Amino acid sequence: MNAGNLKALVFDAYGTIYDVASVFQRCEHHFPGHGKAISELWRVKQLEYTWLRTLMGRYENFERLTEDGLRHTCRALSLELSDAVLRDLMSEYFKLATYSEVPAALERLAAKMPLAILSNGSPAMLQKVTEHNGLTDRFQAILSVDGLKIFKPSPRVYESAVNRLGIAKEAIGFVSSNYWDAVGAKAYGFYVLWINRFKRVQDELGVAPDQEVFTMNQIADWVEAGT
Amino acid sequence: MNAGNLKALVFDAYGTIYDVASVFQRCEHHFPGHGKAISELWRVKQLEYTWLRTLMGRYENFERLTEDGLRHTCRALSLELSDAVLRDLMSEYFKLATYSEVPAALERLAAKMPLAILSNGSPAMLQKVTEHNGLTDRFQAILSVDGLKIFKPSPRVYESAVNRLGIAKEAIGFVSSNYWDAVGAKAYGFYVLWINRFKRVQDELGVAPDQEVFTMNQIADWVEAGT
Repeated sequence: MNAGNLKALVFDAYGTIYDVASVFQRCEHHFPGHGKAISELWRVKQLEYTWLRTLMGRYENFERLTEDGLRHTCRALSLELSDAVLRDLMSEYFKLATYSEVPAALERLAAKMPLAILSNGSPAMLQKVTEHNGLTDRFQAILSVDGLKIFKPSPRVYESAVNRLGIAKEAIGFVSSNYWDAVGAKAYGFYVLWINRFKRVQDELGVAPDQEVFTMNQIADWVEAGT
Repeated sequence: MNAGNLKALVFDAYGTIYDVASVFQRCEHHFPGHGKAISELWRVKQLEYTWLRTLMGRYENFERLTEDGLRHTCRALSLELSDAVLRDLMSEYFKLATYSEVPAALERLAAKMPLAILSNGSPAMLQKVTEHNGLTDRFQAILSVDGLKIFKPSPRVYESAVNRLGIAKEAIGFVSSNYWDAVGAKAYGFYVLWINRFKRVQDELGVAPDQEVFTMNQIADWVEAGT
């Protein structure tokens, strides 16, 4: 596909634009020697809770589920979690850095077509972290699942971007580093670019992204070459 | 709650009645030194794929997703998986043993009220493993999600047992060792007994099972005391 056929790019937030590594470093600060174990289980539970609660029809927002995941993780690892530490770790989510190449790549892409964010994050989380990074003006829309009360990879989440942007799904390029999110977007009908930042092996989900890249610069190169 | 208020017991299959440990031993047989890593990631992916495919509206049956999970696991661990080994590992699912206390506990329970299985497993998997263990006559119904084309913990799965058994949800006791399944059943409205066989820490999902027990014998004791 030629990038000239696309009319907008929609980005996932956590792991795609924003680097959650600082949260993990902060875990190590509070729980020396346990940072890796905490951060790995925390991420597993954060996602698992979004899927399970969507399936059960028991939505709570991403901030709440991120807290729930941390509480479970600390209990599972027999680590005491004070309210002060929980607040401190959660506050990291509001001031995550981007991956290093992202600001310049987004600047190049924004010169070519409208950009938007579509994320599981709560509106407050997304607005604050985007503002913290001075990126608010890069995006035509910052879309949260919160109005729908369901999480990715429900097709209704991806559809909400089509409705909001007023652009056909075939003309939307969706960018995510989370493979399952890339697959969900592809199953819905977007043209999907998977940023495989961590050289992960693809899951077997019956559908695959259209392109695999390793940094956002490759997307900017592809878009500039085709538009 | 007094067990006398219940009119039927519905059981999860894998991990609750049937012990998947033999699959894991078989992994170690084929991939010495990797059995634990394979079996852990395989189980994670098997479940993850049921949730993701339900959310995406891309159902395939549990046998297929179990195979998909194994294929991904071996690729992720850089282990070559031949068709013969895949077939051998999958065949274990059709001849799993029960946990040791299960046959006698089911015999006691079946003397008190109708029993059924409600599982993610495909009908063929469930029928064969139940027959292999000589337990077919213990159950009034062996219910698979396959007719619905969605997986647990969707409330529609639990509802299908109500429709099939013709018993109100409040009068059904649901038994699972999988915490997320116990929570899904409770969120739907069953009276739920969680067999915490592996002394796991509860997840934070906003709903909790009614009772925590550690073996199926405790359920038989409780039912006999109340009926």
